Amino acid sequence: MTVRAAMGLPVVGMVGGGQLSRMTHQAAIALGLSLRVLADDTHDSAALVASGVELGAHTSLDDLRAFAATCEVVTFDHEHVPNDLVQALEADGTTVLPGSNALRHAQDKIVMRERLSALGVPVPAFTPVATARDVEGFARHVGWPLVLKAATGGYDGKGVWVVHDLAQARDVLASGVRLLAEEHVVLRRELAALVARSPGGQGAAWPVVETVQSDGICVEVVAPAPGLSDDDAVQAQELALRLADELDVVGVMAVELFETVLPDGSVRLLVNELAMRPHNSGHWTIEGSRTSQFEQHLRAVLDWPMGATGMTAPWVVMANVLGGEGEPDLDRRLHMLFGRDPALKVHLYGKQVRRGRKIGHVTALGSDLEATRTRAREGAASLSDGRWTH
Amino acid sequence: MTVRAAMGLPVVGMVGGGQLSRMTHQAAIALGLSLRVLADDTHDSAALVASGVELGAHTSLDDLRAFAATCEVVTFDHEHVPNDLVQALEADGTTVLPGSNALRHAQDKIVMRERLSALGVPVPAFTPVATARDVEGFARHVGWPLVLKAATGGYDGKGVWVVHDLAQARDVLASGVRLLAEEHVVLRRELAALVARSPGGQGAAWPVVETVQSDGICVEVVAPAPGLSDDDAVQAQELALRLADELDVVGVMAVELFETVLPDGSVRLLVNELAMRPHNSGHWTIEGSRTSQFEQHLRAVLDWPMGATGMTAPWVVMANVLGGEGEPDLDRRLHMLFGRDPALKVHLYGKQVRRGRKIGHVTALGSDLEATRTRAREGAASLSDGRWTH
Repeated sequence: MTVRAAMGLPVVGMVGGGQLSRMTHQAAIALGLSLRVLADDTHDSAALVASGVELGAHTSLDDLRAFAATCEVVTFDHEHVPNDLVQALEADGTTVLPGSNALRHAQDKIVMRERLSALGVPVPAFTPVATARDVEGFARHVGWPLVLKAATGGYDGKGVWVVHDLAQARDVLASGVRLLAEEHVVLRRELAALVARSPGGQGAAWPVVETVQSDGICVEVVAPAPGLSDDDAVQAQELALRLADELDVVGVMAVELFETVLPDGSVRLLVNELAMRPHNSGHWTIEGSRTSQFEQHLRAVLDWPMGATGMTAPWVVMANVLGGEGEPDLDRRLHMLFGRDPALKVHLYGKQVRRGRKIGHVTALGSDLEATRTRAREGAASLSDGRWTH
Repeated sequence: MTVRAAMGLPVVGMVGGGQLSRMTHQAAIALGLSLRVLADDTHDSAALVASGVELGAHTSLDDLRAFAATCEVVTFDHEHVPNDLVQALEADGTTVLPGSNALRHAQDKIVMRERLSALGVPVPAFTPVATARDVEGFARHVGWPLVLKAATGGYDGKGVWVVHDLAQARDVLASGVRLLAEEHVVLRRELAALVARSPGGQGAAWPVVETVQSDGICVEVVAPAPGLSDDDAVQAQELALRLADELDVVGVMAVELFETVLPDGSVRLLVNELAMRPHNSGHWTIEGSRTSQFEQHLRAVLDWPMGATGMTAPWVVMANVLGGEGEPDLDRRLHMLFGRDPALKVHLYGKQVRRGRKIGHVTALGSDLEATRTRAREGAASLSDGRWTH
């Protein structure tokens, strides 16, 4: 049974009840839609605010099928639905976007690296490894330290290990997870190129951003990436649009990039990760772009034309709010923050606060980069810790 | 029993399930809240998208009490809750914002006109009328035509009659509703001054806008009001802030104004109506101001500091989407619209389409007034009628 939403518009369902679903629901409301959400728990970030919530497991084909039966399009707020289940939904005739063939490149780093290499896209030197001998052989080419990564399931720095010798590598190998080894790239900084693509093949690219990580977690995004030349920015956008096309992605895709510097001083961009959904590196688009990544993702999966991706201010800085120590009095912290910076935009995800967990983000818009960055950092720190300095 | 929302933040409940609640819920999501909604029906605009929906009548004290028991602050998306019921909630100890003493000025035009006159605020000449003789006496002062208005319950042009003679006035009087008579003001255009005020008395004013009506329904809002002098704009803002203070309003208040021209060419502003809630004249603030009226209303009723009210573009034009003939294929119309104008922002309310009913709005931002206005008009017309010309 396929239902139609209010106003005769299609029903979009999102698997996963996290903050990406939550913010996609906000965008859906404007478009006359009401996002359906498959959540694990009534306390999931999106389940707290959406009306069309189904409880179920994203690893259960029965739950996915029951959910899909009430939607015209199914999409995702994470990459953790096993690919064979996505294929089973497709075999049922369900419209799943992005589809299983695209999605596997965001689910399996070995598949992704091999495909990108075949396409001639620059990636770090890599090889699948299963034994210490595999690692040792690879280290002879790239030296120590090198990076071991879980082929599947990692996020926010989890599933990534920088190992300095074979003993450390053996510890990781002992975990039994499927691994690839990568060269330890000497990078200047990380960038992200965010694009969207519709089934008809229309693409849209936002300005390339700089992402700042701490302990493997994105803490800050600056749009546009400061000091990136127009040529390099266009190169990154074209790379992302080309990848979206080659991989037949539908919806938003974030291409995480390493910016490296060659001996002649020129920039070389290597693809680190792909995410095929709205992404932390695009939260700034809610206020900072004419079309947010959440609206764009919905437009893409509904095959509506893409929205304009121009910026609404010269500089936009997003800073993640991470859980700090103890139970915060957020009511009081918001009071202080809004009193101090009436123009800062706050997004809280309704999640239980745990140390280091992403519980929200703030966005500052301005015409001066350093002032804008300071506002975002101080605002996020004040919500994390109740302090203004960070 | 008072519940706390996620993240320990307060629970705000809004009485009424219309589009104002729907858009307030969007703003609530960003602030980490989940708006509770008292709706008449599961198909109400806000009930379609919010998780915390209670069904009940806004005219039932039992329903209001049961709803209020689950909220820390109760506010409204319309003025139709009888004032004595608001007083009863206050007597229970419920925090109701705006309170009954403020709200009566938005509920009863006679109370409002008398209070504003006492404050020295310019309003059209008026008098309460109950008989043809009352009307005849008033007509001797202001001439024909004159305007009869229902003291309570009118909206969108309903409850307002322009009468040209005593026979027409008798027809209106025969309806038995409580009436006031007003001079028929010769006006150049209508303006609106939108402000917000917190319990602590902090005020915030958005730029004054021009509102364009057709058949008593607002069809277009232009921010800022074209050609309005800075002095006149500041005068209107100060008037609205002063009224909010005098009437002890908490939340957003829209002051609808008649712009009239005195014989010496100077502008004189008369107050037409007050609305103490987010208002159609402020929908442009969602994208057009750093803080939307919906976020500001929540900040005000939570006694959080007011957000910045600066504009995000030189010109912002909002056009209402009214229901046209027959059942529209909105999916197709959105496809056309987004293809033609990728930067236009669309808001649909999920409501069943009926001729002349407000089913959504569009917002255009730009640096050229006429181009921006044309985009908004054409966009709204294309969703109303499926045509580009209007």
